[in-house]
Amino acid sequence: MNQSSGRYLDDFAVGQTFGSGRLRIDKEQIFAFAAEFDPQPFHLDEAAARDSIFGGLAASGWHTAAVTMRLLLGSELKPAGGIIGAGLDECRWPRPVRPGDELRVECEVIEVRPSRTTTLNQDGEAVLVHVVNLVVLRRKDIRQD
Amino acid sequence: MNQSSGRYLDDFAVGQTFGSGRLRIDKEQIFAFAAEFDPQPFHLDEAAARDSIFGGLAASGWHTAAVTMRLLLGSELKPAGGIIGAGLDECRWPRPVRPGDELRVECEVIEVRPSRTTTLNQDGEAVLVHVVNLVVLRRKDIRQD
Repeated sequence: MNQSSGRYLDDFAVGQTFGSGRLRIDKEQIFAFAAEFDPQPFHLDEAAARDSIFGGLAASGWHTAAVTMRLLLGSELKPAGGIIGAGLDECRWPRPVRPGDELRVECEVIEVRPSRTTTLNQDGEAVLVHVVNLVVLRRKDIRQD
Repeated sequence: MNQSSGRYLDDFAVGQTFGSGRLRIDKEQIFAFAAEFDPQPFHLDEAAARDSIFGGLAASGWHTAAVTMRLLLGSELKPAGGIIGAGLDECRWPRPVRPGDELRVECEVIEVRPSRTTTLNQDGEAVLVHVVNLVVLRRKDIRQD
């Protein structure tokens, strides 16, 4: 992304919402992410997952978070300089992501500083909710080319 | 992990600390993660990264989070039933992770419910700090085999 394109801090206002496209999470992706970063039985083995607290195969919460980032980058949020998180507040995983789920993101500006992001599955159910403290440049921070 | 092994809620006490081994993050891993989940120039291109707010190539914060999960799984934390996050509070990325950085985790129990986790680089500098609300089973939640 060209750093001189996109929205500046001055362009964001409370109540603005931004949506994203959809990404389908398949079983192989759940296995691949978990094998590298979160190798626990309920992310790697369907039989073990059925006997776990999840009651079936579930994506790692970090996989859901990473997919959320990917969806945000494709959304209309587009802060100038890119999407740079200084931190998160109140990150929750209210329900598991299952193989075949299609995720999309709804993002709402709740202050000029932070924004709330919700990742939903194909049934409109929240799978990840967090408050992101984005670094967003003021127009004067970047020379206009 | 055998679900009947590991620490139960009753085994955790305020002030306990748990360390991890180390994982080195190389440039190729930074590129691979970013290409899939966080394709922004400062995670994908060294020249573009030099001109960005990061001043050089930096790992995606979600990559740091995922590596933290991997390190936690190898640590002595070992809650019974696995490491299952119900959510995070106060997640911050105080400094970038650079190619060649070696990360390790220090985890401290700060209440019987949540715990604070800090991921440090090879110089002992924090690269990720978060408060995790772990789901930890009481002994009575699982039948002992």
